[in-house]
Amino acid sequence: MARRQMHLGVFVLGTGNHIAGWRMPDAYDSFQSLPVIQHIARIAERGCFDLLFLGDTLQAGANDHPSYTARFEPITMLAALAASTTHIGLGATASTSYNEPFNVARWFASLDHLSGGRAAWNAVTSSNPRAAPNFGREHAPHEARYRAAEEFVDVVMGLWDCWDEGAIVADRASGRYIDPARMRSLDHVGEFFSVKGPLNIGRCPQGRPIVLQAGASEPGLNLAARTADVVFSVVQDLEEAKAAYASLKSRMPGFGRRPEEIAVLPGVMPILGRTRQEARDVLDRLQSFTTEGSAVSLLSSRLGVDVSAFPPDEKVPDLPLPSTSHGFARAMLSKARREGMTWRDLLNLTGAARGHWVIAGTATDIADTLQEWFEGGAADGFNIMPAWFPGAFDGFVDEVVPELQRRGLYRRQYTAKTLRGHLGLDMPANRFFPK
Amino acid sequence: MARRQMHLGVFVLGTGNHIAGWRMPDAYDSFQSLPVIQHIARIAERGCFDLLFLGDTLQAGANDHPSYTARFEPITMLAALAASTTHIGLGATASTSYNEPFNVARWFASLDHLSGGRAAWNAVTSSNPRAAPNFGREHAPHEARYRAAEEFVDVVMGLWDCWDEGAIVADRASGRYIDPARMRSLDHVGEFFSVKGPLNIGRCPQGRPIVLQAGASEPGLNLAARTADVVFSVVQDLEEAKAAYASLKSRMPGFGRRPEEIAVLPGVMPILGRTRQEARDVLDRLQSFTTEGSAVSLLSSRLGVDVSAFPPDEKVPDLPLPSTSHGFARAMLSKARREGMTWRDLLNLTGAARGHWVIAGTATDIADTLQEWFEGGAADGFNIMPAWFPGAFDGFVDEVVPELQRRGLYRRQYTAKTLRGHLGLDMPANRFFPK
Repeated sequence: MARRQMHLGVFVLGTGNHIAGWRMPDAYDSFQSLPVIQHIARIAERGCFDLLFLGDTLQAGANDHPSYTARFEPITMLAALAASTTHIGLGATASTSYNEPFNVARWFASLDHLSGGRAAWNAVTSSNPRAAPNFGREHAPHEARYRAAEEFVDVVMGLWDCWDEGAIVADRASGRYIDPARMRSLDHVGEFFSVKGPLNIGRCPQGRPIVLQAGASEPGLNLAARTADVVFSVVQDLEEAKAAYASLKSRMPGFGRRPEEIAVLPGVMPILGRTRQEARDVLDRLQSFTTEGSAVSLLSSRLGVDVSAFPPDEKVPDLPLPSTSHGFARAMLSKARREGMTWRDLLNLTGAARGHWVIAGTATDIADTLQEWFEGGAADGFNIMPAWFPGAFDGFVDEVVPELQRRGLYRRQYTAKTLRGHLGLDMPANRFFPK
Repeated sequence: MARRQMHLGVFVLGTGNHIAGWRMPDAYDSFQSLPVIQHIARIAERGCFDLLFLGDTLQAGANDHPSYTARFEPITMLAALAASTTHIGLGATASTSYNEPFNVARWFASLDHLSGGRAAWNAVTSSNPRAAPNFGREHAPHEARYRAAEEFVDVVMGLWDCWDEGAIVADRASGRYIDPARMRSLDHVGEFFSVKGPLNIGRCPQGRPIVLQAGASEPGLNLAARTADVVFSVVQDLEEAKAAYASLKSRMPGFGRRPEEIAVLPGVMPILGRTRQEARDVLDRLQSFTTEGSAVSLLSSRLGVDVSAFPPDEKVPDLPLPSTSHGFARAMLSKARREGMTWRDLLNLTGAARGHWVIAGTATDIADTLQEWFEGGAADGFNIMPAWFPGAFDGFVDEVVPELQRRGLYRRQYTAKTLRGHLGLDMPANRFFPK
């Protein structure tokens, strides 16, 4: 019997996932360069990765992570990569709070056609309050954002089903281009959105694009259990990861789904060394590069409070969950509590992987840990967050991936052409045009 | 002294600009194929074109032009072409009615960075009432759409000015990534939009992307005279074209601009034959391919009335200008009146070039006419609308372009790397960071 296979994504920020990764000597220092992102995509395809993923933010500040402040817009960046790559899945965040469902459905359908079936949409509610003033809005509370997001995702998925396969006939002899029996309107009228449809693009190569989600709150987990194909989780240790994994998968039968229909990928920053000491030295070097302003800005946005006023050597107190992202706040505050961290410790942790999990060690250490999580009910794979590009990513692909391959845990070559194929998922049924 | 040079754009619809062009034996019959659009872009670069242009519509009907019904979303398609081309300008429509200014500014800034300075935004108000129900809206009247569009364009152009050149310092030694003195917020608060800014992408390679416009109404012409770099005009004959050209250029000094700062490009469908008779035969063949349903659907949308009820052999009456697009309605109704056309005649005209001008003849005839318009105060160049792809476009590039080159009217090779460079326009001043 074929062994269960790990799935790998790469979280792309051109200047590196570490807030100060760009200060490493061999690091790219721009996220506004087509050759940079093409190079990263080439490394990912060399490593047979399932997915290249971009988060997004909808505001800029001089103290933000450099790859938040000056960066490509995600859908344009992925479309450029669609023309520059051949196999890797291409996923990006698009906000359910500051976009129209018709436009979002259309971008990812278009990307799916451009890439031959490699598009993925990360549906997020935009947790950062600083985005709202760029759209003439007030930042909505967590509950209201998720209520709108539920409907938004349903509308987008409905629009993707308004075309049947084979609707484009293009019969030169008769002049009939479309078979009107194979396209229909959606006629959605709901609390937040009214959308008639159909889209002006035919059924996607993947049936519909892959849906990514990262929500960790109750409504976020339910939305994911109901609609997602891939879930990014924010976890700091194995027990927490197992609990999050079980919590998500246990919800799926209630929505008529099998647990295998979602791949759970914790975000992880691997810090590689030839020895454990060398890995720790690399991490220390990165941490020494972090400037206080940037770490304060990032942690404030993660926790939804201005942390600049807290004395760095005081212990992090119990704080209520903010109206921003529950996932990061919960993971970081619970780790701080468990380990008795000071604000300085928490600033260091956030500056490293932005609240995600860090493993520092040799290639064998890292492969051991990934295997332990993968086989221990904590993960179906990982969203790899290289601290900087290209060096830290080259290291993972050239040292850790072969180790995973030797253990039979990871593909040695692509066996499919679509992201759905890499993930081993069936073509989805079309709610309007059942087979 | 260097002779004034013509500018050429190509209006891309994968199935051809003629509504039935896809039925020609050598025609592409899909606008959902990356190889098709890459091939079209290669032909355009072989012809040293300034610009590849995509219009857009935000709805689909089974009887619409095939390239409206099933097509790539424009910004994703242009981004894919940014990675597949080296010189040609890449322009697309984005609606001021169904998008957020922050998002539009960001897409085209991102495209400008991806393409190394080749992005262009066609600001349109979305004239088709059938788009509104896809966004939960009522179709706004012409005047209200333009009032919002004025503000929308100002916000987008303002966002493009929020970053100065050199703002990204990326100094590894000090850890300073951004010079905060070189980025600022916009703080726009207006009738329709409140947008704080700045964008999370740095100053564009072109300073700002090129602004295209196609409005022909009074508010449309004023908006273009104030803000556009390139204007597409919809005209059916030389006198009308001269009047439209003069009307636009005469408005520019009132906005503090020189007439040379806008390139006016009438849309034209060249139908090429080795003889005039052969060209007429090609046009007749195309017209014979047109199905009534598709022509009725297109004309109804251009005129803003359902024309299916009018007897085909009756003369076209005087109709009021609709709440849709004034440009097309005015050009077609005035031509119908001048020439005493029946509804059947007008359906034929619309089916051909969707309301644009058609020239059928030999390469010399076509070059003669383009030269006459170019030198006669009617045009600074042309937006070429091949009836089908690739054949009709290959014909223009291989037969007409060399004739224009022999006459010294058109470049023989690219002399610039950016669209702004092709158009001979200076880098724009930054309103917030004057030099």
